[in-house]
Amino acid sequence: MIGRINHIAIAVPDVTAAAQHWQTMLGATVSAVQTLPEHGVRIVFVTAPNGKVELMEPIDAQSPIAGFLQRNQDGGMHHICYEVDDIAVARETLESRGARVLGNGEVKIGAHGNPVLFLYPKDFNGTLIELEQVVTATTDASAE
Amino acid sequence: MIGRINHIAIAVPDVTAAAQHWQTMLGATVSAVQTLPEHGVRIVFVTAPNGKVELMEPIDAQSPIAGFLQRNQDGGMHHICYEVDDIAVARETLESRGARVLGNGEVKIGAHGNPVLFLYPKDFNGTLIELEQVVTATTDASAE
Ligand SMILES: [Co+2]
Ligand SMILES: [Co+2]
Repeated sequence: MIGRINHIAIAVPDVTAAAQHWQTMLGATVSAVQTLPEHGVRIVFVTAPNGKVELMEPIDAQSPIAGFLQRNQDGGMHHICYEVDDIAVARETLESRGARVLGNGEVKIGAHGNPVLFLYPKDFNGTLIELEQVVTATTDASAE
Repeated sequence: MIGRINHIAIAVPDVTAAAQHWQTMLGATVSAVQTLPEHGVRIVFVTAPNGKVELMEPIDAQSPIAGFLQRNQDGGMHHICYEVDDIAVARETLESRGARVLGNGEVKIGAHGNPVLFLYPKDFNGTLIELEQVVTATTDASAE
């Protein structure tokens, strides 16, 4: 069911400072800062040849990662995201096997505009797993 | 300086059970269990098309991840490993920029037989970063 590793997300207290630091210290390739108000985060991608790390800063106390940052003031590894072909099928399969989906169990639109769901960390070795259905952008060539 | 993401390591209390669970629940591709006594861990690779997760169980109370498991009894994301071309150059560069290498600062031979070092998590947003110099195996074709 799970396919590519889409990203590894790291919560940070200050995404601008973190991106600058990863760039200066590690020679990392970092994107511009994007603010996603509907997801409560400001993010930067650290891109590698085979994948990406997403640095995320909560934009306010209501942010879904505000509590995590409060418990981990330096920041920390927050989740790993795997791609799936069909999120609805993934959800049904997982629930039929006894895995629990976070929140009300419904598929949401994630930070990258794709349908996502998060699995209950206690079911996966204390690790928060995000599943994302990567919808291929329609290109001119394939549009009718 | 940093190149590919080599692996994401997750500490787990029981690597056999964890591998079975990831396989059954997520359809993950998992390797056989390998025991690395000199590193104090038993590991399984969960392979994806673009990278791998390494599930690690401490083999005893002296294991370098025993304390982490005691603080995180379900397990949890432990570190992320980036490849570098030359570990000695990476170490010098990082230290000249003020980053701290864990332990006595020396390069060690890591779990995959390659030279590695770990950076101080407080310097990188609470995230433990491993750097690994991936030594390409000598093949018959390239051997003299
Ligand atoms: Co994510
Ligand atoms: Co490692």
